[in-house]
Amino acid sequence: MRAVDIIIKKRDRQELTRQEIEFFIQGFACGEIPDYQVSAWAMAVLLNGMTPRETADLTLALAHSGDMLSLNNVVPIAVDKHSTGGVGDKTTLVVEPTVAACGLAVGKISGHGLGFSGGTLDKMESIPGFRSDLSTDEFLEQLRTVGLVLTGQSADLAPADGKLYALRDVTGTVQSIPLIASSVMSKKIAGGADAILLDVKIGSGAFMKTLEEGRALGELMVSIAKQAGRKAIALLSDMNQPLGQAVGNALELREAIETLHGGGPPDFREHCLVVAAHMLVLGEMATDEGHGRSLAQEALDTGKAWERFKALVTAQGGDVDYVEDPERLPKAPLVERVPAPQMGYLDAVNAQVIGETAVLLGAGRARKGDPIDHAVGLQVLHKVGDRVAAGEALFIVHANDRSLLAEARLRLLAAHAWSETPVEPLPLFYGVIR
Amino acid sequence: MRAVDIIIKKRDRQELTRQEIEFFIQGFACGEIPDYQVSAWAMAVLLNGMTPRETADLTLALAHSGDMLSLNNVVPIAVDKHSTGGVGDKTTLVVEPTVAACGLAVGKISGHGLGFSGGTLDKMESIPGFRSDLSTDEFLEQLRTVGLVLTGQSADLAPADGKLYALRDVTGTVQSIPLIASSVMSKKIAGGADAILLDVKIGSGAFMKTLEEGRALGELMVSIAKQAGRKAIALLSDMNQPLGQAVGNALELREAIETLHGGGPPDFREHCLVVAAHMLVLGEMATDEGHGRSLAQEALDTGKAWERFKALVTAQGGDVDYVEDPERLPKAPLVERVPAPQMGYLDAVNAQVIGETAVLLGAGRARKGDPIDHAVGLQVLHKVGDRVAAGEALFIVHANDRSLLAEARLRLLAAHAWSETPVEPLPLFYGVIR
Repeated sequence: MRAVDIIIKKRDRQELTRQEIEFFIQGFACGEIPDYQVSAWAMAVLLNGMTPRETADLTLALAHSGDMLSLNNVVPIAVDKHSTGGVGDKTTLVVEPTVAACGLAVGKISGHGLGFSGGTLDKMESIPGFRSDLSTDEFLEQLRTVGLVLTGQSADLAPADGKLYALRDVTGTVQSIPLIASSVMSKKIAGGADAILLDVKIGSGAFMKTLEEGRALGELMVSIAKQAGRKAIALLSDMNQPLGQAVGNALELREAIETLHGGGPPDFREHCLVVAAHMLVLGEMATDEGHGRSLAQEALDTGKAWERFKALVTAQGGDVDYVEDPERLPKAPLVERVPAPQMGYLDAVNAQVIGETAVLLGAGRARKGDPIDHAVGLQVLHKVGDRVAAGEALFIVHANDRSLLAEARLRLLAAHAWSETPVEPLPLFYGVIR
Repeated sequence: MRAVDIIIKKRDRQELTRQEIEFFIQGFACGEIPDYQVSAWAMAVLLNGMTPRETADLTLALAHSGDMLSLNNVVPIAVDKHSTGGVGDKTTLVVEPTVAACGLAVGKISGHGLGFSGGTLDKMESIPGFRSDLSTDEFLEQLRTVGLVLTGQSADLAPADGKLYALRDVTGTVQSIPLIASSVMSKKIAGGADAILLDVKIGSGAFMKTLEEGRALGELMVSIAKQAGRKAIALLSDMNQPLGQAVGNALELREAIETLHGGGPPDFREHCLVVAAHMLVLGEMATDEGHGRSLAQEALDTGKAWERFKALVTAQGGDVDYVEDPERLPKAPLVERVPAPQMGYLDAVNAQVIGETAVLLGAGRARKGDPIDHAVGLQVLHKVGDRVAAGEALFIVHANDRSLLAEARLRLLAAHAWSETPVEPLPLFYGVIR
């Protein structure tokens, strides 16, 4: 078998065999197949596509390039959740303690943020002392004893995926649905998930800009899970406007804490209830989605979810005083409440512009490894369809620098589009793929 | 400007600007843009194409990556010829002395063979002492004093093309008409050609398998020449069966010598007359093709072309005794005349199989730098459409090994397809692109 023949086969729109895909990925992982062959292949995949069978084989080849965790000695069914990334998406912070409160143990491996999409670990690291670098043994032990974990990757999960992603990033081959699907699923499968709730974000603040693309990605990931003998459900959720109000690390953590107390923005609470309900069904803790939803609602409203959250913070070394009194969390020196410049109905609240503005303020990273400021960010106070009076507060900017604040104010004003006539609100979800 | 954005633009089927193409090729040439970005770009070009304007800009960027020869102090119009490569294509050996005998000085930079397509220099190197490694100064001096040169590349012509070709070869990106066209034309333009006769071979023994592909390549190369301020004509010629009878280095040289004496296989002589006529028109030595043809015919029939050939051999250190008595040229120890296994009309004489069989016998190289045997090869005695009697000689194998001879015999028998009813001969040419 020769790498160049595999490239030519994909170039000529032929289907690759499992053996060819394994040969190619193993060769890439061990350095025998050079980057320049893999990037040409990735471009051919991007332009000519892959069948679901090829994508499943690619996923498994990537997963098997490193350690394969097994959680079956620790939990009856290992349920995981993955969001394709959005603006203001602090769902994990609420959903994980909620389902844990309902008896479903979840050990989640998460990441730091890059670009306009925030990272779950960055939000948790607003809490002094919180560790997101647990070893594999610590991970397993905490999952067994506490029933929930939220940490970064320590085991060498799907290293070929990391190598492939770095190459795709510099060769214009990121935007390929089969390559995105296999990248996500390889890490979930290597991480030992038996069942996966996929939250596929669609809209201006997501990687998938259209419902068609989002549906294709969701269907492909569910199909990969089936072919790999796992269960999966994909929710297609809106990301044209931010989820909830807060964008920025400590701000989002505060909003999650409010939600864990039974409050929080209605759209965000509703999103969390739907995600939790599906996870409880996947984990066989609920008979159907309605049952799962009422369990999740109870966990939030009785404070059980909040207790689990505090147990998580404590287990990972975080100072629980900061979450019990969120006023102590990092705060930006400059806070400005910006009024609506006019009366009208909100026609759009551009999530991508809002995400990019949060990065500009210092809440996110343009490049891997850049430092971030946990305190800065913004709160977007209205949703598409809201009727807003002139002078009513439209958004709040939390900044550490006057000129950045001024720039953010301009950008955020421009991110809001207005209509003189009533506007339909955006849906939270577009569909479910099973 | 970032390389990744140029890749993405081509991936998304947008037209690249001249500045983007120059930035990309210059960056590649100096090592600032890595191979893995260039191979992804080449795959995007192969799959999404390039406009003629982009291809001309690419050609000029490749040409300007190294030395740019100028022949205008030496010859009034520098005319060059390029064949896209075929089986039994010894045209340059006859055409160059023929047009030189008509007063058109030609300095040709040629190459060694690779794969089933033979190389002009290998054929000339059958002559003891013949040098094909002239320096640029020797090249210019011989062009001035002798009026014809046939040598390998010494100046650093289009080095970025060499680097790009090596990368394309291992990434499945050879078969792209814009990339092939720019590769050919960049070297011709860097070599100082004012006018170029392009011989585009089409058929089983050529890189272009269909008339449609050949026509597209010819049109693109002529368009590049125009955009670069050069003249060009492309002949579309048949390569479904070998040109002439001989395939193999000394065998082809002998056939060229016969043709230079006014003899030779009729198809090969006709091919040479047409090519020479067009070159004489390009070089303004003939008013039209008919005039050029009669000049070329006279040069062959009066022995003037043969005299120029001997002058070429002498000027480059070759022992002229060997061409005056071709019996002294390298001869294979085993020569077998193979009879036709049946009576019938020849329906096909597969040029690719014949070219590969010559490589098997040792006449060509599977890899660059492999040694070759100048003596071995074969003679295919009949053309498609010929009526052949059972037992009549069909082909002659010249080998240096009994088992290779037996293998070649089998392959060559299989390369001949038969019909019981009359078959139309193949045309020599399919068209001319101006």
